[in-house]
Amino acid sequence: MKGCLVSLEGGEGAGKSTVLSGLRSHIEAHGIVLHVTREPGGTMLGEAIRALVLDGSMRDVCAESELLLMFAARAQLVRELIKPALAKGEWVLSDRFTDASFAYQGGGRGQPQERIAELERWAADGLRPDLTLLLDVPVEIGRARAERRGSPDRIESEKSDFFDRVRASYRERAGHEPDRFRIIDSSREIDEVRAAACAFVDQFLAARRSAK
Amino acid sequence: MKGCLVSLEGGEGAGKSTVLSGLRSHIEAHGIVLHVTREPGGTMLGEAIRALVLDGSMRDVCAESELLLMFAARAQLVRELIKPALAKGEWVLSDRFTDASFAYQGGGRGQPQERIAELERWAADGLRPDLTLLLDVPVEIGRARAERRGSPDRIESEKSDFFDRVRASYRERAGHEPDRFRIIDSSREIDEVRAAACAFVDQFLAARRSAK
Repeated sequence: MKGCLVSLEGGEGAGKSTVLSGLRSHIEAHGIVLHVTREPGGTMLGEAIRALVLDGSMRDVCAESELLLMFAARAQLVRELIKPALAKGEWVLSDRFTDASFAYQGGGRGQPQERIAELERWAADGLRPDLTLLLDVPVEIGRARAERRGSPDRIESEKSDFFDRVRASYRERAGHEPDRFRIIDSSREIDEVRAAACAFVDQFLAARRSAK
Repeated sequence: MKGCLVSLEGGEGAGKSTVLSGLRSHIEAHGIVLHVTREPGGTMLGEAIRALVLDGSMRDVCAESELLLMFAARAQLVRELIKPALAKGEWVLSDRFTDASFAYQGGGRGQPQERIAELERWAADGLRPDLTLLLDVPVEIGRARAERRGSPDRIESEKSDFFDRVRASYRERAGHEPDRFRIIDSSREIDEVRAAACAFVDQFLAARRSAK
């Protein structure tokens, strides 16, 4: 049986890191072989691109370059890690995937949706997650949490209206693909958020087993 | 009067560096304000991408990522340096431009021409050189020269058939755009090659002045 790709999405301060580690142990407890990765990153090339694209000293990176760099990292991750793992029946849990490009480079930076969809087709080889958990939190709450974490990277340093557009894009995409997306209200306590994420994975697993 | 973009193309060991410095002083002697740049590179972001994409320790970079990285560097170069310079009536002389992606990532790596053309349209903002000088040399002669230079980078380490495809792509593109391309036989002595390049620039300048 083919493996599954689960992506975790959300804006700044939505609790992704905590939820990610909770999900990891939860999924592994089901006896599933799981690779945890992140975007941009996850490969030697991807991590080098990550360092470059989030570098706060890289001023005035144009929106086109940012989009291309995200997909350069993604193309490598898909071919080097994700597809081989899925072919072996293993699972991949990724901290962000292509939806983040639609939200950040599309909604946030104004890159056309068709351009991103075209890159998704050939650079990401048309691969979409089987399940996407969207941690949704009002921008002001998320940013207040993120600020407590310390110095922001190049993208985290954007203004609030940027993150308003990111959040709106995420929610719009989730609305268009209700079968794949699960929206989790992440303004709640982090334990509740994590529990909700794990419950959605259980629900997904149960549906998958009954469909066999 | 709008400035001009002149690109210098060619495979390994074609003599690009020597010709470039000869062209620089020749063009400047015409009283033209000239920016000399290179691809990938030419901006802070582009040079960081160059270091990454030519890094010999980056194994198994997929063809899609390589293509996207080249255009990420190019998108930034076009917007940060080339277009502002051309708008001021200045000239830009670039060591490689989009034709190199068609030759290396297209011909060499097998990425579809339409994919590269589409990236040219939006990532390079449709910008094409006004004049392209193609230093053409048989692969075995070029490689023998390049080897004398010392340790090859990731792309220079490819096998001969890769460079055969690169050369064929360059020549094919030149054949399709005879008004823009000038092919220079670079199997000759470097002084002759440089003189031929300068003569083509003079010819281009004369034609441009008479067209005014």
